[in-house]
Order: sequence, then structure tokens, then C-alpha cells
Amino acid sequence: MSDIGIDDLPIRDELRGKSPYGAPQLDVPVQLNTNENPYPLPEQLVRRIAERVAEAARGLNRYPDRDAVELRTELAEYLTRTGKHPVGMENVWAANGSNEVIQQLLQTFGGPGRTAIGFEPSYSMHGLIARGTGTGWISGPRNDDFTIDPEAAEKAITENEPDVVFITSPNNPTGTAVEAETVLALYEAAQATKLSLVVVDEAYVEFSHRPSLLPLIEGRPNLVISRTMSKAFGAAGLRLGYLAAHPAVVDAVQLVRLPYHLSAVTQATALAALEHTDTLLGYVEQLKAERDRLVDGLRAIGCEVTESDANFVQFGKFPDSHAAWQKILDQGVLVRDNGVPGWLRVTAGTPEENDAFLDAVRAVRGATPGPPKGMKEQSA
Amino acid sequence: MSDIGIDDLPIRDELRGKSPYGAPQLDVPVQLNTNENPYPLPEQLVRRIAERVAEAARGLNRYPDRDAVELRTELAEYLTRTGKHPVGMENVWAANGSNEVIQQLLQTFGGPGRTAIGFEPSYSMHGLIARGTGTGWISGPRNDDFTIDPEAAEKAITENEPDVVFITSPNNPTGTAVEAETVLALYEAAQATKLSLVVVDEAYVEFSHRPSLLPLIEGRPNLVISRTMSKAFGAAGLRLGYLAAHPAVVDAVQLVRLPYHLSAVTQATALAALEHTDTLLGYVEQLKAERDRLVDGLRAIGCEVTESDANFVQFGKFPDSHAAWQKILDQGVLVRDNGVPGWLRVTAGTPEENDAFLDAVRAVRGATPGPPKGMKEQSA
Repeated sequence: MSDIGIDDLPIRDELRGKSPYGAPQLDVPVQLNTNENPYPLPEQLVRRIAERVAEAARGLNRYPDRDAVELRTELAEYLTRTGKHPVGMENVWAANGSNEVIQQLLQTFGGPGRTAIGFEPSYSMHGLIARGTGTGWISGPRNDDFTIDPEAAEKAITENEPDVVFITSPNNPTGTAVEAETVLALYEAAQATKLSLVVVDEAYVEFSHRPSLLPLIEGRPNLVISRTMSKAFGAAGLRLGYLAAHPAVVDAVQLVRLPYHLSAVTQATALAALEHTDTLLGYVEQLKAERDRLVDGLRAIGCEVTESDANFVQFGKFPDSHAAWQKILDQGVLVRDNGVPGWLRVTAGTPEENDAFLDAVRAVRGATPGPPKGMKEQSA
Repeated sequence: MSDIGIDDLPIRDELRGKSPYGAPQLDVPVQLNTNENPYPLPEQLVRRIAERVAEAARGLNRYPDRDAVELRTELAEYLTRTGKHPVGMENVWAANGSNEVIQQLLQTFGGPGRTAIGFEPSYSMHGLIARGTGTGWISGPRNDDFTIDPEAAEKAITENEPDVVFITSPNNPTGTAVEAETVLALYEAAQATKLSLVVVDEAYVEFSHRPSLLPLIEGRPNLVISRTMSKAFGAAGLRLGYLAAHPAVVDAVQLVRLPYHLSAVTQATALAALEHTDTLLGYVEQLKAERDRLVDGLRAIGCEVTESDANFVQFGKFPDSHAAWQKILDQGVLVRDNGVPGWLRVTAGTPEENDAFLDAVRAVRGATPGPPKGMKEQSA
């Protein structure tokens, strides 16, 4: 029995030979690989979470609020206050991480016989969740500087007629923001031949130099803004993603959501965190400054850096980015190799972590006999 | 914009006209409709949950343990101790409710172009999650007394060649347990023409007169036991489901699971509850006694009752079960109309709740001019 493996089971053919998604979880001193917020929650908030969870635990024998009304109301209040556009509970839906939000959207608007497009390199879970929901995946183009060329992207939409269009802004792993005009042009293209859902994934928008694209949902029932509490709220461990859209979209995802998908402890913890929004957004300001310091520091070392509107920075270029990743790891700093040839990604950590990272990159570059040939030209 | 509804959106055709799944959540004094455990968690456990969640909240800025190793280890220990079969962490997988466990199994072993079978009436989410994952659904047969006829069920498997077979034991909403011999026969039938996954949904097994079918996984890599902490652990609000199977099955579902699907607060809360297993299983014994008292009480009133191995009882028969549901509700007691003609389902509550329920049924039956014609004969 012990020699039976996955391939001996009657799994779906397209899953054969695949590996589970996930960054390597290595135990090293400085972990700057998964775009986590380096600041632990303040102790006052930890105590408030314990209070609210204890309160929820007293009713834990009952199913949670299936519609998460209080949580969606508070998320709507947060969006209204920070997104420069008034939304209500009826515009908001929440799930276990934005991954589950995206899965529910693809189950509703994608699925077997339908397709979705993303402009790559981008957040690889979009394509993986498409696969998991039986949705065909189309890899759309990006410019060499990782911005989206509106004309090329429109052409990809017009030619492929996808059912779902993903626009990640700021983009992961490149950090690139997308102009509102580009999103509007792609939305129009996605409504021209048939109606398609356009999902703007704003997981990192609180770190951006530009405002959220939330106001664009007005008058556009097929436009969805996806958000998360993992990054700006410093709550990756909470798994709380949400979306803002026309109320009809919120009604539609309820056709596929698992009933009672959001536990009472998750709802209680998220509500506690939302009580401390101002403190948490203060950390965001610190991280934006550190992100900018990383950009400057990397350039001073001679690295090329992609413009970043996120809490991470894409840097390069390396003749062999995986070898560079290993050399930085050997210095005790874990960054991310997202498979973009020549580039690596580093998360903005605490000042001390960022110093350690910059030292490691400096050491790695100093340890080589000068920058490899061709790097200077590529960096221009 | 306000007059746009779901059907104006480009949702999948098979979702059009559907309604979200879920029992009506009504505010009445006695709620015996969703098979919840009526006993709140003891205050000592509530305090322990608050402690463990506070500890987890201090690291909430980091992603949770993606593989939930500590939780799966403790669940395996619980299964080994109560299930009369040794299992390890590698045999166990956990997710947000057994609904998500089932969804992951269907994404891996079902999906577009594949089918699943259940023997109905049974837990309706099996069919609904099949729909949500693009898996075709086959309704298999049951006897009039709601037991499974092994020969008829084998025939349904052999003729339809489903990729996934659901056997719910004890069955919801009928309370009916399935013999180990029947499960073995259906497993053999499901391996005969092609290899199919057999899922034994044991959500209510702690309330059964019979032991868990867990030992059957030995030597049967395509047999999965699905469990939950919602019922016996009195933690419906926690959303913690799990499975036990060959390690290859655990590896396989990781190909489709959303990374970091199980939050740090969920893992912490479940671990706290598992520390209090003995106390919680004490409540199970009380509920089994109350369930048996409900059976006797209903029979004394003249109701027909289906043999129950669960924490609920199916009772009838009513010429119009929805009208009977409404009349019982008018007495302040909410039971469940699962759409099984002639039958309703009541959850075993506290002694006081069960008394209120029996009084309500007595009043409803007393209010009618004697039992409707034909009822006596059907009850025989």
C-alpha cells in the first residue's frame, strides 16, 4: 500500500504530473519572499481579537452568519472612506482569502467551456484557479517594461473573447500599476463582442502611489474590484479577501459559494482588525517609505528595478536568476524567484531586514568578478 | 443601474434561475433545523480558544502553516483513539468545513466530463458542489425505508460508471446508517469497471450506534472518510472539516487546494477544541440519549420515525409536510423541511427544546381532526 502514489489514483488527467502551488517555506533569518507585512499586529489589537473571538466562541455551536452582514458592512465603510467612492454592504462580498473570491468568480463567470485571460507575468494563482475550476487560460501580453500596452491587450481580448479578464494593479510580481484609462479601454473591449467580467485585482493597492480604481464600478456591472486584508492590514494569517462590485455580482457569487464558508472566528478577527484600521494604515506608510528606500538602494548597487506601486520590488537583471536567488539565500535572506527570467522579487520588510537584504545583494554582486557582461546595457 | 439583476450578468447558463443553498435563518425561540449542537462550548474552552487565538494573532502578519501539520496531527490522534484504526498526519487533510473537503475531492476526482453519484434523499450539498465543480450528478436509489439496497446501488454504479460515489452514513436527512458490508460491496463495484473514488461522509458518526468505518481505508486507496467538527465538537461556527484516506489522496487534493486555505485562527481554534475532546464527547452522549427520547416521544404521539444514528430524527408522515412545518413553526419551533415528501427533520436539542418540540407536534396533531386518513396504515 505504501508504494501507491498520486498517479495510481483516478485523478483528472490535467492534474497528472503537477505540483501544489506555494512558495518554499524555509527557515532563514530574513524572510522577504511572500509579500507579508513585517509588522506584527499591535498588542492592543491582539487583545481585541481575543475578546471578539471569545465572544464568537460562546456561540460557536451555531453556524456563523452565512451572509457576514456585519463584516461586509464594515468593509464597505472602509472602502467608502479610503476609496473615494461610496459603497454599501450590498456591493461587498468576502471569502477565505482573495483566492476564494477569485475561485467563486470563476465558478460563476468562467468554468468548463469558458476562458479567462491575464496579462503575464502576473499573479500566477489566477491561471491556477482557472485550471482548478475548468476554465481555459489565455496568457495575454505585457511590454518589456512590464506595463500593459492597451492596444495589444485590447487585441488579445477582441481575438480571444475571454469570459473573464484579470487586470492586476499593482501587478504581482512586477509591482506595476495600471492606468485607469487602460482599465476602461479593456473593459470596453471586454463588452464589445460579448459581455465579459473584468476583475481588477487590487491586493496591493494600499501601497500604491495612485488611488484605488474602486470608483470605476459605478455604471459598470461587469467590473469587479478584488481586495485583501493580507497585506495592508498585516493579516496574511487571517485569510480574508473581499470584492466590491454591483450588487448583482454579489448576488451571483452566492449561487456557488459554499454555505457558511466564512467562519465565526474569521469574521470576529476581521472585525477586530477593522477597528484598528488607522494604526494599520500607519504601518503601510512606513512600508511605502521602505519600499522606496529599497528601490534607491538597489539602484545604487547597480541593479535594475521595475517601478513599484506595491510592498515589494522586482529587481535584476541576472543572467541566471535562480542562481542569484540561491546566493542571496546563502546570505540568510529569502527572496522570491517567480520564474520571470532575469528578475527576482523582494518584499519590503522592516528597516533592519531591508538593510540585511541590501547587504546580501551587495555581497552577491561583489563576490562575482564584476557585473556579468551585458548587464550594464540591459540596465540602461 | 439599480434594475440590473443576476440574469443581466454573463453568468454560466446552468446557474440561471437558481437560488443560493441554505436553510431559512428565522428568529424563533427553538431552532432545531440545522443539526447544530445545542450545547455552547464550556467557558474553560472559550478561554483556551481566546489564548490560542491571541498567540496566533501575534503572528497573523505571516501566512498560516500551509499544510496545517499540527492540526492534522491532532486530528489523526483523535481518529486513532476513537476510530479503532491507527492513522497519522499523512492520512488526514483539513479544510473550511467538510463542504470544502468535498469540493476539493470533486475538483481532483470529478469535474468537467466526469460524474458523481449519491443515494437520495441524502445530503443535498453533494449534488450542489458537484454542480459547482462542473461534475455531472447522478441520483442513485434508496429503499422506501431509506436504507440502501446494495444490489440496486451496485447496479446504479455498474451502469453509470460514476467517477465519485458518495455514501453518507449516518445519512442526512434520514438518520440512516449504512452497513460496512454495503460500503465494501459498493467499493468493489466502483473498482470493477474503472477505478472510482468512494467518499463515506461520516459527518454525524459520533452520534451513531455503530463504530466509524475508518478501518475500511486500510488497503483501499480510493476510499475516503469525510468528517467534521461542526456536530460532535459543537463547533459549526468554526467550519472545520477533514478527511482520512491513503496518503496519496491527501497528496492529490493538494493539487487543487487554494494555498493557505486554512487560516491561523481556524487552526488555533480547532486545536483548542481538540484539547477538550473528552468534555465535548460527553455532550454527545447526552444528545444520543435525547435523540432516543425524541424517537420514543414522537412514536408515542403517533408519528412514524426513521431509525436514527445521527443527532436528528426524521419524522412523519404528513400529507403536506410543508404545511406541517409551518404549523410547528407557528408554535415557535423551527424544524427542517428537506423536501422529502411526507417527512420533516428535527435536530436533537436540549431537553427543554425537545420538550417544546414534542409539545408543538402534539398540539399540531391535536389541532387536526385526528390523524389524516391513511396515516395509520403508512405507519405500520
